Amino acid sequence: MSSSFGTLFRVSTFGESHGPAIGCIVDGCPPRIPLTESDIQEELDRRRPGQSKIVTQRKEGDRCEILSGVLDGKTLGTSIGIIVRNEDQRSNAYKEMETAYRPSHADFTYDAKFGVRAVAGGGRSSARETIGRVSAGAIAKKVLQQSLPGYECLAFVRSVQDIEASASAIQNPQSEIIESNLVRTCDAKAARKMVALIEKMRKEGNSVGGVIECVVRGVVPGLGEPVFDKLEADLAKAMLSLPATKGFEIGSGFAGTLLTGAEHNDIFISKGGRIRTKTNRSGGIQGGISNGEDIVFRVAFKPTATILREQDTVTKSGAATMIKARGRHDPCVLPRAVPMVEAMANLVLCDHLLRQRAVS
Amino acid sequence: MSSSFGTLFRVSTFGESHGPAIGCIVDGCPPRIPLTESDIQEELDRRRPGQSKIVTQRKEGDRCEILSGVLDGKTLGTSIGIIVRNEDQRSNAYKEMETAYRPSHADFTYDAKFGVRAVAGGGRSSARETIGRVSAGAIAKKVLQQSLPGYECLAFVRSVQDIEASASAIQNPQSEIIESNLVRTCDAKAARKMVALIEKMRKEGNSVGGVIECVVRGVVPGLGEPVFDKLEADLAKAMLSLPATKGFEIGSGFAGTLLTGAEHNDIFISKGGRIRTKTNRSGGIQGGISNGEDIVFRVAFKPTATILREQDTVTKSGAATMIKARGRHDPCVLPRAVPMVEAMANLVLCDHLLRQRAVS
Amino acid sequence: MSSSFGTLFRVSTFGESHGPAIGCIVDGCPPRIPLTESDIQEELDRRRPGQSKIVTQRKEGDRCEILSGVLDGKTLGTSIGIIVRNEDQRSNAYKEMETAYRPSHADFTYDAKFGVRAVAGGGRSSARETIGRVSAGAIAKKVLQQSLPGYECLAFVRSVQDIEASASAIQNPQSEIIESNLVRTCDAKAARKMVALIEKMRKEGNSVGGVIECVVRGVVPGLGEPVFDKLEADLAKAMLSLPATKGFEIGSGFAGTLLTGAEHNDIFISKGGRIRTKTNRSGGIQGGISNGEDIVFRVAFKPTATILREQDTVTKSGAATMIKARGRHDPCVLPRAVPMVEAMANLVLCDHLLRQRAVS
Amino acid sequence: MSSSFGTLFRVSTFGESHGPAIGCIVDGCPPRIPLTESDIQEELDRRRPGQSKIVTQRKEGDRCEILSGVLDGKTLGTSIGIIVRNEDQRSNAYKEMETAYRPSHADFTYDAKFGVRAVAGGGRSSARETIGRVSAGAIAKKVLQQSLPGYECLAFVRSVQDIEASASAIQNPQSEIIESNLVRTCDAKAARKMVALIEKMRKEGNSVGGVIECVVRGVVPGLGEPVFDKLEADLAKAMLSLPATKGFEIGSGFAGTLLTGAEHNDIFISKGGRIRTKTNRSGGIQGGISNGEDIVFRVAFKPTATILREQDTVTKSGAATMIKARGRHDPCVLPRAVPMVEAMANLVLCDHLLRQRAVS
Repeated sequence: MSSSFGTLFRVSTFGESHGPAIGCIVDGCPPRIPLTESDIQEELDRRRPGQSKIVTQRKEGDRCEILSGVLDGKTLGTSIGIIVRNEDQRSNAYKEMETAYRPSHADFTYDAKFGVRAVAGGGRSSARETIGRVSAGAIAKKVLQQSLPGYECLAFVRSVQDIEASASAIQNPQSEIIESNLVRTCDAKAARKMVALIEKMRKEGNSVGGVIECVVRGVVPGLGEPVFDKLEADLAKAMLSLPATKGFEIGSGFAGTLLTGAEHNDIFISKGGRIRTKTNRSGGIQGGISNGEDIVFRVAFKPTATILREQDTVTKSGAATMIKARGRHDPCVLPRAVPMVEAMANLVLCDHLLRQRAVS
Repeated sequence: MSSSFGTLFRVSTFGESHGPAIGCIVDGCPPRIPLTESDIQEELDRRRPGQSKIVTQRKEGDRCEILSGVLDGKTLGTSIGIIVRNEDQRSNAYKEMETAYRPSHADFTYDAKFGVRAVAGGGRSSARETIGRVSAGAIAKKVLQQSLPGYECLAFVRSVQDIEASASAIQNPQSEIIESNLVRTCDAKAARKMVALIEKMRKEGNSVGGVIECVVRGVVPGLGEPVFDKLEADLAKAMLSLPATKGFEIGSGFAGTLLTGAEHNDIFISKGGRIRTKTNRSGGIQGGISNGEDIVFRVAFKPTATILREQDTVTKSGAATMIKARGRHDPCVLPRAVPMVEAMANLVLCDHLLRQRAVS
Repeated sequence: MSSSFGTLFRVSTFGESHGPAIGCIVDGCPPRIPLTESDIQEELDRRRPGQSKIVTQRKEGDRCEILSGVLDGKTLGTSIGIIVRNEDQRSNAYKEMETAYRPSHADFTYDAKFGVRAVAGGGRSSARETIGRVSAGAIAKKVLQQSLPGYECLAFVRSVQDIEASASAIQNPQSEIIESNLVRTCDAKAARKMVALIEKMRKEGNSVGGVIECVVRGVVPGLGEPVFDKLEADLAKAMLSLPATKGFEIGSGFAGTLLTGAEHNDIFISKGGRIRTKTNRSGGIQGGISNGEDIVFRVAFKPTATILREQDTVTKSGAATMIKARGRHDPCVLPRAVPMVEAMANLVLCDHLLRQRAVS
Repeated sequence: MSSSFGTLFRVSTFGESHGPAIGCIVDGCPPRIPLTESDIQEELDRRRPGQSKIVTQRKEGDRCEILSGVLDGKTLGTSIGIIVRNEDQRSNAYKEMETAYRPSHADFTYDAKFGVRAVAGGGRSSARETIGRVSAGAIAKKVLQQSLPGYECLAFVRSVQDIEASASAIQNPQSEIIESNLVRTCDAKAARKMVALIEKMRKEGNSVGGVIECVVRGVVPGLGEPVFDKLEADLAKAMLSLPATKGFEIGSGFAGTLLTGAEHNDIFISKGGRIRTKTNRSGGIQGGISNGEDIVFRVAFKPTATILREQDTVTKSGAATMIKARGRHDPCVLPRAVPMVEAMANLVLCDHLLRQRAVS
């Protein structure tokens, strides 16, 4: 299914950028979980356009409405429907996109696949699609918090282009610091440089990418499945399904290929009455199954494809032409992608939590 | 489902390292596809132990038997059962593993999850599990070749630790070169250095990892789905589900985060009557859907966890102890992982080919 | 997934009887299918309360809104979101249901399963839930009509209690006759008796059930799968998932068990250049796969559980009590169940049409 | 997936009648369940050909081999592979089937669907396919017995053609009686008449069908899902996926349509500290969810399509011809279908048990 994700805790989403509404159904949520619209709204506000000067100025309130599955502040165990109405649509800003393909966007491939395309705002390929994911992720987080004391899923911007947060800040990311700067990085000093770079890009009509890191704390050992549904495999799919992503790595990642086995192995130790590992190059997952250490992974986001410059391209019929985006765009998607990464991680972990419950 | 993969072209696998047999069922294969045991055997021989001096010397013939779904050299459209009997089992080599956890293996997490574990050979967490995948991938390849003229899926070792194939060889990998060296890299000169390094590691009882790159040629535009089942998302899951993998990147990958949008965008051009892109930083996929360019991705493999050295660890009850692997192991998994990467890529592409057929 | 149905053409539904809205997402609909809200509204109007004197007088406009997946009267190939707002809610009519369990309703089992329950109107167990199914079924019908010339799915009331339509009318049901009587039977004369019986039941505060028969014409040979996903198996599940159903039979059904094989077998003949069967005791399906004859099946609906009489029951804590339903209810669900049966049949057939396309 | 069944406890099967082997993979079985080959063999022996004079005399030992997922008599939590080799194949008995279609068999529809067919023994459409189901069902039963004290799933032949077991025997079926007569009915007296009828049919080269009833005891309230995956819906699919089935009804079934609501409703009472129903017209399921009463359903089996008489038919090209089955066939499938019905019921209940565990 193109628009569904998860085995037991399953979200299905719908919505084009400039259609009437965006939303989702969450199926498989356990009953009696405390849940209100403000739990969801809080996360939506973090991904909302217009929240700061370095993101797109499109004016969307993105107010969510829970349509079912919740009564008197508790889930019923039945499917939860959620919608967010689209508001600030300037469809005329997309006139020339009807005929000319935007470079590194999904215009050409949607036409190739479907033979038809919702041009305005990119239709289904717009990042507005992630409203459904973020809403569902907020529910998943509630389930996880109720089941796993100390559960926390914390994503942050690790680097923007070549500006990286300091190693010590990355080692110990703090929620308050992350949410206190516009770019959502873990290092206040680096934040200033990142914001400056993004502003520079915006002024130049250019764009920039970077890396988001995510740390999940408080996961019990035993989540994840051998073989195909390894926990890191489902996380990798979750992340690469987000718009603009180009890479995923867990624990030591690509850099780990430069070590020998003797250097790379995580030695088991006994600590606080629990079996722990001395290092965490495994990134909290071994053989596809959580080992109780922090789950740590990174996601690469390419520079935003939409730039406010003339670019060469072709028309539907293949004729050479030029295109220049107008309108309001993100010069860097990372600040708004942080809650998306968390949402997808929460969805994966909640699904595996329920799967593990079923057989234990 | 832990042991199933795919939506329409679906493989389910079974088998422990030291159990009676390993195998799979392929469900959803179209009828009338030419298929013989030797199509499958050819791929199994590429992943087989004992094929060269730089891989494990375990003696397994790994002879496959097709049990159903094929008659007179053609598929019937019904499910295809395949088994490979396990042969060379030295279960006594695993005695101490019963109580002590091997570092960076799945021993601890399997115990945490299941409360029981097939100790010998790692049981289900052994890379022998990939026999089922490679068998199914061989069938997927036949389906793809029949439908897509010019289809080719070519994986190769790009680097072993810090030894990398030359840029020009990576740019244009050739099957004959790859299969003519023990390490399965695209660069004969680099191959010699890689083999020397792996032999050195083996002698030292150490191990080493690296990066495999895969190029898929001849894919039509339009495969892959928007939102969750993006083609790169399914490839990422497929790759991260392979043993020992730590990262996945497509097209420009993590390095692409260092470019600006103006530098990174793939300009559309008209060429040979088709709409093409001038560069391929997208890696052949845009918005989750193939654009007809080569699909190019890379997978990071960690150094083999099994090393022939004393390592600190703990017992099941948490007591400190030492463990030293005995027996026959791969000092570097990459040469044998090449056919596994291809198999998983073929499975993903075949599944998306059938999915696209259903709606077009 | 509790609230999802289908493999490739997949509907997910949400909504409680007295919540804000009911709706669905249809995922996997092919692109470029003509579709408007009135296509859906037409079917919803057939299941709407208040449409005649023999159904519940609850006043619901049941106006649908398409939220995504359709542009300029054509499907986009992306997921289609649909909602219907709930309007006429008299939640106070359900006061005593909070503590006492209604006989043969889902009150007790929902409490047993979820430990929480939306009391008003039966919540998720209300037949209002079928709004999502009927909406999705309307879309499935459009896909089928576009692909299969002559496709028609026609359900009708075959019997109400012991009043049965005439054999000749059943043999050749006509849409115009069915839609021209309040009870939606194929026999105008029987219709009068059925309406009289239903009115009598309503006056007596009692209820009555019956049998719906469905004929699907114009299905090509080859739809359906061997083994588990046999076409009749998926139809059986579809029908038994409808509220108030107690049985399903196809072709000769239970009565067929009274014949010998020599009497029961459908002899093959050649007719009009096609291979046909002389009789149709198979009901259009052999070995799980359509054979091109009319698909004919029947569904048993029990008498409505809600009756306007005092009934013995127990409270949540098990204490004996009495309950008497108030409010507006259907004394016979069959007239409004006819479009539900058609919707589910269309969903099953559309799904199998797409599945067959994928491998042929 | 044609050959897979279940959401969490999932079986995939393979195998043609005259291919090398038949088998299955069971994925999702909880760990540490006691299981040996004899648990499975016991059920296979009940469905085995040649077990009595009234079933087919094909000589198949049907010895199962567990290939994975079990160690030292306990499940590992990993996928369980099982095979049964085919032995007594007389493929030449099927010569004329290559060109002429057997009436009421799947020959024509398989050709229509796949364009190719395993002629001998009916290939995948043979009832030998149910070996995989019965094997998996035996495992499901072990899981259920371990979790639900007092769990029992008991199927029996209720009627053969017009010979029905006595009402009192049907009311209280006993395992010992059922297994002590060749036809597996609950009434020893009726058994004699049924056996005589079946023998008569065999001598006349004719065949006969009937009805199997199944009672599932010891199911806790709360299994099953609202909406599509209602417990009765999944049972209906499970049963209609068995070869030769034409109908399914639960509780009051089709006969229930003759009662009024006041007569049909199951009044709740308090009994033994539990909430019970006075009658069980619901068949143990309300709103799709088990209520703790016995689950009672019936399945209609048509007379065996294979009869040893000349029948009119057509060739692949549509030319009129005659066909007469040779070889060894069941004049009545019901005695051997009893373990198949139980197996499918066990699979459904085990799956829903695990699903309920996941959210509670």
